[in-house]
Amino acid sequence: MNFELNEDQVAFADMARAFAQNELEPHAAQWDQESFFPVDVIRKAGELGFCSLYAPESVGGLGLSRLDASIIFEQLSMGCTSTTAYLTIHNMVTWMLADFGGPEVVERWGDKLASGELLGSYCLTEPNSGSDAASLKTTAKRDGDDFVLNGSKMFISGAGSTDVLIVMARTGGEGARGVSAFAVEAGSDGISYGRKEEKMGWNSQPTRMITYENVRVPAQHMLGQEGEGFKIAMKGLDGGRINIATCSIGTAQQAINQARDYMLERKQFGQRLADFQALQFRLADMVTELVAARQLVRMAATKLDAGHADATAYCAMAKRFATDVGFKICDEALQLYGGNGYIKEYPMERFVRDTRVHRILEGTNEIMRMIIARRVLAESAAEL
Amino acid sequence: MNFELNEDQVAFADMARAFAQNELEPHAAQWDQESFFPVDVIRKAGELGFCSLYAPESVGGLGLSRLDASIIFEQLSMGCTSTTAYLTIHNMVTWMLADFGGPEVVERWGDKLASGELLGSYCLTEPNSGSDAASLKTTAKRDGDDFVLNGSKMFISGAGSTDVLIVMARTGGEGARGVSAFAVEAGSDGISYGRKEEKMGWNSQPTRMITYENVRVPAQHMLGQEGEGFKIAMKGLDGGRINIATCSIGTAQQAINQARDYMLERKQFGQRLADFQALQFRLADMVTELVAARQLVRMAATKLDAGHADATAYCAMAKRFATDVGFKICDEALQLYGGNGYIKEYPMERFVRDTRVHRILEGTNEIMRMIIARRVLAESAAEL
Amino acid sequence: MNFELNEDQVAFADMARAFAQNELEPHAAQWDQESFFPVDVIRKAGELGFCSLYAPESVGGLGLSRLDASIIFEQLSMGCTSTTAYLTIHNMVTWMLADFGGPEVVERWGDKLASGELLGSYCLTEPNSGSDAASLKTTAKRDGDDFVLNGSKMFISGAGSTDVLIVMARTGGEGARGVSAFAVEAGSDGISYGRKEEKMGWNSQPTRMITYENVRVPAQHMLGQEGEGFKIAMKGLDGGRINIATCSIGTAQQAINQARDYMLERKQFGQRLADFQALQFRLADMVTELVAARQLVRMAATKLDAGHADATAYCAMAKRFATDVGFKICDEALQLYGGNGYIKEYPMERFVRDTRVHRILEGTNEIMRMIIARRVLAESAAEL
Amino acid sequence: MNFELNEDQVAFADMARAFAQNELEPHAAQWDQESFFPVDVIRKAGELGFCSLYAPESVGGLGLSRLDASIIFEQLSMGCTSTTAYLTIHNMVTWMLADFGGPEVVERWGDKLASGELLGSYCLTEPNSGSDAASLKTTAKRDGDDFVLNGSKMFISGAGSTDVLIVMARTGGEGARGVSAFAVEAGSDGISYGRKEEKMGWNSQPTRMITYENVRVPAQHMLGQEGEGFKIAMKGLDGGRINIATCSIGTAQQAINQARDYMLERKQFGQRLADFQALQFRLADMVTELVAARQLVRMAATKLDAGHADATAYCAMAKRFATDVGFKICDEALQLYGGNGYIKEYPMERFVRDTRVHRILEGTNEIMRMIIARRVLAESAAEL
Repeated sequence: MNFELNEDQVAFADMARAFAQNELEPHAAQWDQESFFPVDVIRKAGELGFCSLYAPESVGGLGLSRLDASIIFEQLSMGCTSTTAYLTIHNMVTWMLADFGGPEVVERWGDKLASGELLGSYCLTEPNSGSDAASLKTTAKRDGDDFVLNGSKMFISGAGSTDVLIVMARTGGEGARGVSAFAVEAGSDGISYGRKEEKMGWNSQPTRMITYENVRVPAQHMLGQEGEGFKIAMKGLDGGRINIATCSIGTAQQAINQARDYMLERKQFGQRLADFQALQFRLADMVTELVAARQLVRMAATKLDAGHADATAYCAMAKRFATDVGFKICDEALQLYGGNGYIKEYPMERFVRDTRVHRILEGTNEIMRMIIARRVLAESAAEL
Repeated sequence: MNFELNEDQVAFADMARAFAQNELEPHAAQWDQESFFPVDVIRKAGELGFCSLYAPESVGGLGLSRLDASIIFEQLSMGCTSTTAYLTIHNMVTWMLADFGGPEVVERWGDKLASGELLGSYCLTEPNSGSDAASLKTTAKRDGDDFVLNGSKMFISGAGSTDVLIVMARTGGEGARGVSAFAVEAGSDGISYGRKEEKMGWNSQPTRMITYENVRVPAQHMLGQEGEGFKIAMKGLDGGRINIATCSIGTAQQAINQARDYMLERKQFGQRLADFQALQFRLADMVTELVAARQLVRMAATKLDAGHADATAYCAMAKRFATDVGFKICDEALQLYGGNGYIKEYPMERFVRDTRVHRILEGTNEIMRMIIARRVLAESAAEL
Repeated sequence: MNFELNEDQVAFADMARAFAQNELEPHAAQWDQESFFPVDVIRKAGELGFCSLYAPESVGGLGLSRLDASIIFEQLSMGCTSTTAYLTIHNMVTWMLADFGGPEVVERWGDKLASGELLGSYCLTEPNSGSDAASLKTTAKRDGDDFVLNGSKMFISGAGSTDVLIVMARTGGEGARGVSAFAVEAGSDGISYGRKEEKMGWNSQPTRMITYENVRVPAQHMLGQEGEGFKIAMKGLDGGRINIATCSIGTAQQAINQARDYMLERKQFGQRLADFQALQFRLADMVTELVAARQLVRMAATKLDAGHADATAYCAMAKRFATDVGFKICDEALQLYGGNGYIKEYPMERFVRDTRVHRILEGTNEIMRMIIARRVLAESAAEL
Repeated sequence: MNFELNEDQVAFADMARAFAQNELEPHAAQWDQESFFPVDVIRKAGELGFCSLYAPESVGGLGLSRLDASIIFEQLSMGCTSTTAYLTIHNMVTWMLADFGGPEVVERWGDKLASGELLGSYCLTEPNSGSDAASLKTTAKRDGDDFVLNGSKMFISGAGSTDVLIVMARTGGEGARGVSAFAVEAGSDGISYGRKEEKMGWNSQPTRMITYENVRVPAQHMLGQEGEGFKIAMKGLDGGRINIATCSIGTAQQAINQARDYMLERKQFGQRLADFQALQFRLADMVTELVAARQLVRMAATKLDAGHADATAYCAMAKRFATDVGFKICDEALQLYGGNGYIKEYPMERFVRDTRVHRILEGTNEIMRMIIARRVLAESAAEL
């Protein structure tokens, strides 16, 4: 066992931290308030490889492990939770397309997604199927060499500003096995975008509904085989959950770092906040839970890297725990700031708003509990 | 013992609920998004007596008990947390002025505050004295028949849109006993207002810093005697804490009511959310904690009404418990909505943002714990 | 609304407190260690009316309200949790028998149970029906003027040392409506008692399995009508839940009182535990939650007294909340004692062991959540 | 990074698990009820090397890492928490003696402790110094070639049944630097043992007070140098904390395994407990927190193995988190068993009683928070 970063990982982390401090942190508050999607900065991140951390080198990706990616995303999210979260979705899309796409798809979009020249969106959730994703209703009907898509997708990150959509649609019967995945040109005829959702946070990335009305997609743009779409989508989500959990960890670490400094400076009743025992104890618990959560996330990443049979359960545990802990830490850090925690001059309230959604998306934490329980209660299940 | 509302209280509650449903709820989301302070609606509330619920009838107040006021505010806060919270501050100011002001002060402002024609602000917190309020630095120096105020106040609700300021300032030595309270004309020479704070929530009321530069205030505008200002401020806060706790209760009740309806409608995996046992249990706990919190708030109100020796401790317990529970309920209600909980089309994320500050203001929940512990550990203290 | 005890209640409480301090507290540790059932002390309690607080005066009961009884039981449980808990069960049995028994039953046992000369047990739970009580399998078959009982009951408090058993048995078809209740002589032919269960706590009352083998019970000993047994049992439990919740409150209050004194005495690092802020905050939270729980219990008692339509839901909320809070407080008080909390020289570990079972019996806290949720989700349900 | 056991570790774990299943688990309940110290079984454990896992090979120890030891102790504690906990203390004593003792000490006791032929106790806590260990009052005064010990030690595991005592005593001025450590023959003249403490749990190991009255100890029996005793004691505790944390993990894993099986068998309302979603979710959370806690413990062990500058902080985090989580899991497993959880026929209530003390000893979890906070708030502290 080994809980230390290796030299490469330290170097990656340093590079990511520098990028976060120089390119993200100084603008994060403004992007939040203006709901600005910093496409240029994402492209700059792409120059460093951050748009395709674990995509294969064949498309220009760095071909890193999920663990390496988690280490990097953690640092980035210290600069801007919301932008980094989008970046992780883009990485997931890039990897899915590169890994499951046929030659035409890979050639057409692989390099450009990997470099960040083009951006991607992941289209699974529908108005009536959130947690129960396998019940999705969007259809893809074969018509000659094309599939024709009809339906709508909701809560799509990046929608309206991205170039490639990975769309899960029903090509067969009910349930998970009737679903196929497609790479779809975002500007295709028949695609229309809803208004930008007003959200609690995650404001530096646009979220929109997408409606598909007789959208023609070449059959070659299917990812994997017909009927494999749900499996592919879930494979993407295993990694997606590690990524979102990671964004909670990084944001919480940033909240702790700043709250610590604030406690060392701010005085009340003639002493520093850092001198109040009750606040010391709270800080100690925040750090302890963060370190525990981080290890769980990294452990899950190594399970996914190793193709471990229980990788999905570990990813679910990491996502559940780290997103709950991350939110709680940000909430408590806000409290340590008192009134200052509630105003936008300080980042605490943004951290709370941004991490709040991590408990919901990429599978709610309730769905995570279902996944974990199913695994634990499975016949002759070994200990996790 | 009796835990039931009497007929009058039921009638008041009904009236308040109707007002909340007709005048507040339909606009609350918009006020939040536009940071709009609905002065006209507050005046309309004044017509029903809501601007002076527990102010004496001599100034046109309803002269109700704190308990009655809590019952009414709870209903109002179901319509708009933030607007009702301001209303409770205005009520506190009106009561302080009417109860501690001399004849000139009462005659000049009493009726107009009571009716809502004029609005008030409570000015205690300073940039360097939040929790440690008694260390405030704003000075009021006697000069002939006037006092001359210098200093600044922070996080002042309503500031810039209100007409009368209750200002706590130092007329004597260090500590609580050197503080006096004044009623100050909001437009006095030497008063300047900072920019409107950007906050996480409570957006339907403006919050600003106020700077006092050689502001002349007639000595007759002092509330109570010289050196009594801190005591008066704290008396106001006992009630203020019940009020804020009440706003948490009302908002949480609204969150529960809506989440319940949502659970009965929304389907996933072929059944209603209401049919999932894990969600049922969560709802049960939310309701249980809410009912417990509500009773604690009402108990504290009766202690304050009765002038009970431990009223301050009870108010602190009620504020601590109800604001924590209220936030937690709203947060869990948001989770029950899944992705919909995170967007502004639904009120859940606003409930979370609005109730978050209740754990901080009118004395942080940490200060509440100090008050409670001091009381419990006092020599030969009886059980609470 | 009124949250204060009236004069009678204060007098009752004082009397109960004196009894607890003189007759229970000095022996509680020994009774626990020796698993001794203090029948004599229970009889002494009976002389003060504590064996029939809310039984009708017609059988010699005090005819008090459930609220009054809760106030008294709370004080008693401060002296010995386990003995008081048995006493509450005896009170429940006495009330059930007096209220639902026919003349013969009441005449035969009413006075003697009310005075404590005879003791009672409540026999509902079976080895395979705990939470799902309505599925009980013990049968009562009509045979001439008798019913003949067969089956077994588990976890019966007092079993082997009591004189009258209230037995719920199946006289009809499946489900709740097939159940009838009987008053049964404890020494009847065919009744045999299992060995005394070794338990975590509640050691001052014996717990045994009871087996019924062709036990003849006169038909006149049925309580209420045939098929009403489950309803009667549940009516008993509504009150039983308030009582158990009350025992948690009283024990927690005792834990707080002693922990407070300990904190004022015990020194570490050159200062009293009472001077450590983190411990102060914890004590403050313990007291706050206790006061909240107590009000909820008393509120539920008044709902039961008033025959309120939602009494069952309120009793369930009170039981769930107060038993969880009570245990948590005892557990935290133990922690405040450090190593001393873990040894039997101090009562803290006993408080933890004794209150642990309150979260389980009289309906587990999971069953309470089911009851509450069902009520909240009922069609057109009003707010609780 | 690597979160997997290596082959050796798997083999060690298997061996330990077999020992736990064959030699500990079948007797654990009886040892608990009879307060029996299974010295023979401990010796048998010694034959497998379990009495000196991380003691140097020079004394016959296995010379394993703390990580390896944790993996082994975890398995053992699945069989009997209390006996394994004593075993970890014995391991600590053996290591301290072998690592810090002079040649005479090592030669005299090293092998025999390592093999389990002799047993050891760790004597730090005193009646008036628990958390504030550095204020201990036991004195060791130089007299010729001896030191003469006077004072008393409290809560000493194994006392009365062990052969060698590591005693921390004051040889110099106040504070930590005035303390030295000694290896003391348990049967020395002047040593007397108090009565066996009656405890909530940990009953398979005796706990006694030890009084030292003019106990002569050869100066050569000092461990390390004069004044180094507190540092040595704390070094021992870093490992001790990992060990105790480990015993919580192992017990909690056992609780989960059994609760899982129980859920798959036990039926209520016509379905298995495993089919109730609310219980599934609870089980999922138990497993998740356990896995997180285990990683944190193992991470801390590797930090200690590596002599990492922050090892003490990591050990404190691991101890705080794992002992809290472990207790909570056992408590929730008990609840899943309902009434059966409360009786000694099932192990759940023992798990709760045994793990309860882990939150207190080897430094209370409050002391852990102090250690962690001090580290986090230290000047220019890096992230943990």
